Amino acid sequence: MKIGVIGSGSWGSALALTAQRAGNNVTIWSRNEAIANEINRQHTNKLYLQDIKLPEDLIATNDLSSMINNDILLLVVPAQTMREICHALEQKNLPKQVTLVICAKGIEQNSFKLMSEVVKEFFPLNPIAILSGPNFAYEVAQNLPAIASIASAENAELLAKMLSSKHFRFYPNNDVIGVQIIGAAKNVLAIATGITIGNKMGENSKSAILSCGINEINALSIAKGGDAKTMLTPAGIGDINLTCNSLTSRNTAYGIALAKNKTNNGHLIEGFFTAKSIFHLSQNLEIDMPIFKAVYQIIYQNYSINSIIKFLNNS
Amino acid sequence: MKIGVIGSGSWGSALALTAQRAGNNVTIWSRNEAIANEINRQHTNKLYLQDIKLPEDLIATNDLSSMINNDILLLVVPAQTMREICHALEQKNLPKQVTLVICAKGIEQNSFKLMSEVVKEFFPLNPIAILSGPNFAYEVAQNLPAIASIASAENAELLAKMLSSKHFRFYPNNDVIGVQIIGAAKNVLAIATGITIGNKMGENSKSAILSCGINEINALSIAKGGDAKTMLTPAGIGDINLTCNSLTSRNTAYGIALAKNKTNNGHLIEGFFTAKSIFHLSQNLEIDMPIFKAVYQIIYQNYSINSIIKFLNNS
Repeated sequence: MKIGVIGSGSWGSALALTAQRAGNNVTIWSRNEAIANEINRQHTNKLYLQDIKLPEDLIATNDLSSMINNDILLLVVPAQTMREICHALEQKNLPKQVTLVICAKGIEQNSFKLMSEVVKEFFPLNPIAILSGPNFAYEVAQNLPAIASIASAENAELLAKMLSSKHFRFYPNNDVIGVQIIGAAKNVLAIATGITIGNKMGENSKSAILSCGINEINALSIAKGGDAKTMLTPAGIGDINLTCNSLTSRNTAYGIALAKNKTNNGHLIEGFFTAKSIFHLSQNLEIDMPIFKAVYQIIYQNYSINSIIKFLNNS
Repeated sequence: MKIGVIGSGSWGSALALTAQRAGNNVTIWSRNEAIANEINRQHTNKLYLQDIKLPEDLIATNDLSSMINNDILLLVVPAQTMREICHALEQKNLPKQVTLVICAKGIEQNSFKLMSEVVKEFFPLNPIAILSGPNFAYEVAQNLPAIASIASAENAELLAKMLSSKHFRFYPNNDVIGVQIIGAAKNVLAIATGITIGNKMGENSKSAILSCGINEINALSIAKGGDAKTMLTPAGIGDINLTCNSLTSRNTAYGIALAKNKTNNGHLIEGFFTAKSIFHLSQNLEIDMPIFKAVYQIIYQNYSINSIIKFLNNS
């Protein structure tokens, strides 16, 4: 298969490597011409993948027009940039048979749309898939063992087969909605578990927040049309486990900072924006999400972290 | 309610405190007379709960006969001792209206019976419940926030109400089988995730093992009569998250040691025994559990840890 990767950050570059290892013909597009040149000439992407050596047949380009001639396009741009890149691809007349694999986790600000809803506005006829799992990009680039979910109503099985390689296995499912809700919400849950760490509430309370938070996410997912079983896929508990237990997660670090009243960097954290989107989604769908509501109130309404502590108390 | 706690280890003592904080009249039984005396006179249990001060109205006894006059008995003894304590309580003519709450996690060696199956051999008419959740005893004793599941076919809602206090909330469910399967199997899964740590396979692979392992546990639970939804309760993913991510877990430490070929202390680890029980259960019920099978083979059949690594590879 001819696979194009839109985005040359750490995750885009790691996924380009993944697709190439699976035996596909891969081109990576970078907005940044210098990075495209570095990939083509030095076969590295030092800014995002440090010392990782890229294969010589992994081609990079700065020209978006050339990308529309692929069978599959992986969209690996930040969630808030998805609309812009879709608009640009529409201008290039992307053919309707190209499968679009969304590899961004998040909800569009203000519209509160899932990434698939944004992409479908521009490409209503193209097959759409979501790639999500417990994956640190640098470990994937190193070819350490990993798994992920690939969700699509159209061709999940085929995509899983096309992307799987010796050390990276993809599990197909058809729950495009559930995978996206979980992928976005887990960043907010990591802020909540970070608060329990920062507030020295113990490991029991961290697992309590995780356990209850998973049920809040599932309720939202089901209300939005998702499937409860998706929580047991790599994109579910696998990804949540990684994000909420990693000591290097920026969302966790932000939660810890919130508990200590040191929070001047929230605008750089994906969970900061998603907290607002999830809150509004839950209001629109009339789903009770006390942990997510508490995180929203702490970030946006100057509530103290007592609102998380209160959730764990019986009144 | 009059609640008796059988067992004065760290979890028994912490649960006695929990029951007392919930407003019950609590007596704790210790096999060890010196501990019973220390609880009654010094109001401490230094061997198991360090500096924690116990309330003066928490009474301890070394006399099992006096324990049968409770409404509820919490059985907080090691899994492999459950049969012996049931035999002793049967000798004392335990009345059939006393609710027996099993607080031990594990499967009986050789018989491969769940704890509820062992208890029912002796007390077929008594209401039976299982208490399980993400709970480090010392944090519970400190009254840090925590949650747990209480499973019973007879009176889960009532028990949840009787045991819940300000900082410790119990969630009722009726899946006695599922809660026990998960509670036992999580220790084996922690050995598997420990192996990924010891073998430096990365955080992605640890989450992969956890995600796939949860599905193996669910398959076994369903085959045994459990409910897939139990995985989303505190006794499910809550407890698994705590056990598989805690750096102080003995099962994790054992897995790390296995990966480094330093394993002279396996016989002290609950997961060491449960690996065998789960393997035989899965064989009897014809459930495919590749991760659990690999752990069994590594421990009991001298397989190398490559069998875990192989699981993560595509052949």
